[in-house]
Amino acid sequence: MPSFTLTDVGRDLWVENFAIDAASVESPSAHAWSVTKRALRGGRRDGVDLIQVNNGVFTFSIVPTRGMGLWKGHLGGDRVGWDSPVGDGPVNPAFVNLMNWGGLGWLEGFDELVARCGLENNGAPYEEKVTNPDGSERHTTYGLHGKIANIPASFVAVHVGTEPPYEIVVEGHVEESKLFAPQIRMTTRVSTTPGSNRLTVRDEFLNLKDAPGEMQLLYHWNFGPPYLEEGARFVAPVKVMAPRDAWAATAIDHYETYRAPEPGFAEQCYFFELQASQADGRTLTMLRNKAGDKGVVLRFSPAQLPAFTLWKCTGGLKEGYVTGLEPATNYPNPKPFEKARHRVVALPAGGRYVAEMTLEVLSTGQAVAAVEAEIQAIQAQATPTIHRKSTEPFGPQD
Amino acid sequence: MPSFTLTDVGRDLWVENFAIDAASVESPSAHAWSVTKRALRGGRRDGVDLIQVNNGVFTFSIVPTRGMGLWKGHLGGDRVGWDSPVGDGPVNPAFVNLMNWGGLGWLEGFDELVARCGLENNGAPYEEKVTNPDGSERHTTYGLHGKIANIPASFVAVHVGTEPPYEIVVEGHVEESKLFAPQIRMTTRVSTTPGSNRLTVRDEFLNLKDAPGEMQLLYHWNFGPPYLEEGARFVAPVKVMAPRDAWAATAIDHYETYRAPEPGFAEQCYFFELQASQADGRTLTMLRNKAGDKGVVLRFSPAQLPAFTLWKCTGGLKEGYVTGLEPATNYPNPKPFEKARHRVVALPAGGRYVAEMTLEVLSTGQAVAAVEAEIQAIQAQATPTIHRKSTEPFGPQD
Amino acid sequence: MPSFTLTDVGRDLWVENFAIDAASVESPSAHAWSVTKRALRGGRRDGVDLIQVNNGVFTFSIVPTRGMGLWKGHLGGDRVGWDSPVGDGPVNPAFVNLMNWGGLGWLEGFDELVARCGLENNGAPYEEKVTNPDGSERHTTYGLHGKIANIPASFVAVHVGTEPPYEIVVEGHVEESKLFAPQIRMTTRVSTTPGSNRLTVRDEFLNLKDAPGEMQLLYHWNFGPPYLEEGARFVAPVKVMAPRDAWAATAIDHYETYRAPEPGFAEQCYFFELQASQADGRTLTMLRNKAGDKGVVLRFSPAQLPAFTLWKCTGGLKEGYVTGLEPATNYPNPKPFEKARHRVVALPAGGRYVAEMTLEVLSTGQAVAAVEAEIQAIQAQATPTIHRKSTEPFGPQD
Repeated sequence: MPSFTLTDVGRDLWVENFAIDAASVESPSAHAWSVTKRALRGGRRDGVDLIQVNNGVFTFSIVPTRGMGLWKGHLGGDRVGWDSPVGDGPVNPAFVNLMNWGGLGWLEGFDELVARCGLENNGAPYEEKVTNPDGSERHTTYGLHGKIANIPASFVAVHVGTEPPYEIVVEGHVEESKLFAPQIRMTTRVSTTPGSNRLTVRDEFLNLKDAPGEMQLLYHWNFGPPYLEEGARFVAPVKVMAPRDAWAATAIDHYETYRAPEPGFAEQCYFFELQASQADGRTLTMLRNKAGDKGVVLRFSPAQLPAFTLWKCTGGLKEGYVTGLEPATNYPNPKPFEKARHRVVALPAGGRYVAEMTLEVLSTGQAVAAVEAEIQAIQAQATPTIHRKSTEPFGPQD
Repeated sequence: MPSFTLTDVGRDLWVENFAIDAASVESPSAHAWSVTKRALRGGRRDGVDLIQVNNGVFTFSIVPTRGMGLWKGHLGGDRVGWDSPVGDGPVNPAFVNLMNWGGLGWLEGFDELVARCGLENNGAPYEEKVTNPDGSERHTTYGLHGKIANIPASFVAVHVGTEPPYEIVVEGHVEESKLFAPQIRMTTRVSTTPGSNRLTVRDEFLNLKDAPGEMQLLYHWNFGPPYLEEGARFVAPVKVMAPRDAWAATAIDHYETYRAPEPGFAEQCYFFELQASQADGRTLTMLRNKAGDKGVVLRFSPAQLPAFTLWKCTGGLKEGYVTGLEPATNYPNPKPFEKARHRVVALPAGGRYVAEMTLEVLSTGQAVAAVEAEIQAIQAQATPTIHRKSTEPFGPQD
Repeated sequence: MPSFTLTDVGRDLWVENFAIDAASVESPSAHAWSVTKRALRGGRRDGVDLIQVNNGVFTFSIVPTRGMGLWKGHLGGDRVGWDSPVGDGPVNPAFVNLMNWGGLGWLEGFDELVARCGLENNGAPYEEKVTNPDGSERHTTYGLHGKIANIPASFVAVHVGTEPPYEIVVEGHVEESKLFAPQIRMTTRVSTTPGSNRLTVRDEFLNLKDAPGEMQLLYHWNFGPPYLEEGARFVAPVKVMAPRDAWAATAIDHYETYRAPEPGFAEQCYFFELQASQADGRTLTMLRNKAGDKGVVLRFSPAQLPAFTLWKCTGGLKEGYVTGLEPATNYPNPKPFEKARHRVVALPAGGRYVAEMTLEVLSTGQAVAAVEAEIQAIQAQATPTIHRKSTEPFGPQD
């Protein structure tokens, strides 16, 4: 498998521009795939590295400068992602101040197809009071969704398979580490095969410490039109569901369907335990359009990502009409709440945690129907419990 | 009108260096004007874009990386601007932390001839207590003078007129926008004509949201020597004036004149409603030197910028001996104070707000006298009200 | 003395890459010295300038982008510095948020051989309550160890002596200055002579204000293996010593020796007044390995740097197994504590403060023994006072 290292700070290796395609590596693949890398200039994206993968059918971009997040995808004429109010992203983390707006500064850079949330904390911001040795006090804010999406990758490489299915892999390392704090290295491998409608994100988190550590992890997958629209539906094999709050509870009877864009609409969140297939222990969720001929599917294992959040943010089209499908190790409550409910991952010294997801983009009614049937089969294993109010241990009891 | 686009992140367009002059575009203008653009390197200015406009007589620089602020001007041998303690600006926003010093971090980058203050808030920093859904609390700091001066422009272009008066225009777009927050695009046009002693800043603010929004806007024009000196004078057609606080009130009888540099001198602020000319609804203010042979004039419309603040900051020469002439939509009190007094601009969905100002640089006694006469004529329309103490609704009642 | 200016923002001077060596300047020195400069790319080091000095025997690097800190040294096969958990430094200050973690954000970039701490404040973070003119309150956090290590240098030059001892000097200017705040220019000269095992840091701090100012200054010299190991020893001529807190007090009887790496070990700090040699008023401290055949020595004057802190941070090898030898103007308590005990340096208008230190790297038993004898001779001048508990005025009374 030929490999091309684009960034390796340990060896002071840096490639300014890079492009390969099926022809240049004499790939026997039938698909005209390509991988390019360049640095963006101007505006808030100045200095951001962008890797674009085109597998011949499905294209997507990866942002090493933003913690190896996935920025946008396209399949056929359809955009896979959303229109963030941020506008001129991807935003260089140098221009993001996580401490702005009482710890909501993360939103300054939030425009990705998928942003990882963590690792020290994720979810809503919270504040802790710290007492100094001399008795004085200070306040520490832990910001929304943590740090990892704003840490530039220290290592980036592209690997290309020489045998069928000629897999294309973009590897990246991101370290969230400093003295007196978590020290975790994420090694991500984002892969696809030429001609497919899929990509797989496989992340390994290594505790670099000599001592035990912990982490939180949430994958903030975000989709707008054409998958999201009035009458679009969320489909998932539910074990238990609870609305996040009273506002979400008001819409409990139609949480699976989406409304048209409504300027000023406040977000609604639903927390899930999903059922896994008895066959392979895996599960899947889908967002499909109204007609049922377009869909995006996430496949993953609840053993790795046991907490799932559905984020419905159907404000105006220009305000970020978007829905989040969020497989995670925890719900996006403030970390102390999650910690008390044992939803923080413990990592032994030198320990590892792996999470893997596949995104599948569907463009026919047949494909959507097949996935619905697949989900229904898992759902049929057991009757779901639907809480009508916010409920422990998912969130504060209403 | 030939146009040269220098930055357009939407099209991934970026021009590293740029230079045109009257000769290169075969301009029939009699003046040897030029426009250049380059990226600065080193120190805190590393990576900052700088556009320099020379209209043949008057030169000034624009900083796309700092929200299209104007950095410095020169006319004849005179510097139009001030000596900021910052020293090695213009400072890349990547090195400015707006949350430093309890929300005074904005000062880390403050060295411009004019910095725009806003748009979500401007004025003094303030703190709000936020209660999380789980009942926990956190504190949100809104920093001094907001965000816009530290947002890099997403679009920059230079336009050159081919017919008299051969106008030179630098256009820039700056977006202050993110999810769950204001989404405003500023389109600025900074223009001058070859051979003139003027520049005009015309800003249009567009609410990108599908829902109503709001904004605050203050133009922090800053002048030091040779316009500011002992015995220099501020001249304006006053309708109402109130000192900001008890300290400013102590100098109420000579608020119009300036003192020599005094190390450690604390700033004094005065809030004004200005009179507009009955003829055209416009007004003007001037800072003139003691001899009355040099002056800087701001012309604008109180209908657009109804609140005017005079900032007298006459500390030591090396500490920022400077005065601010600040046309605005509000006074620089904390936003909640201004909001309660209806001095926050409401923007309907898709709505626009326009503000325009002309800076005129005077270099003869005749020109200064003419402007004084012009101001006097407007002043003569009505007797000014001078409050001797800080007074509602300008500020907290003393 | 030929000089090469690499950065001078005042003149818009910037040199992207630079390399000289003994041969290229036809130096008569017998040693194959060299000085290079380049910009690092990728990861969190993207855009960081690095100067590498090799005097033929001893190499070390200087980071203009990080306030002229010294990053790493090497002598023979030995690394002089430590393995910071940061991993992929030196970190661009654009990626460091000093306000993260309640003011501990400084740790995001902390991986240097020596980081200067100051100048407005250093030591532990603290919070102040500020009351706005309208009676509202806000909280200001002063972060750990201040700002200077995260300010890019505005001026960098290399000077090379043409006469014995053919001194090599790297000069840098760093300004910590803004409106309504301290305005201090540091001019540092880091020098070495070809073939020597030493480098000297000479810093001059100039108060740029027209009014009096003040500063705090601490040199955070950090060493790991091979100098630090189980059984390694700290050697210094002690006048008075006090542990920082009850935890440090528990180890008071063996504060001079180091333990093996212990995952999760919490740092212990000891505060010293050191004795100065009656001969020249200078003092020295040493960290030596167990065998006594390797050592690092700091030589300085207590008249310039009267407060010395020993930081023992002997956690796991991967967690930053490190010790800090920290000559300073104060102890690293929160600034208000130090200020009340008159350990903040007053700087008159235009006043200067100079601090100078020499780092010596020893690689033989003979050299280590000679330094131990030198320290013993100073120690013999007076009996040390060893406090067994944290004690005023060094820290809060236990």
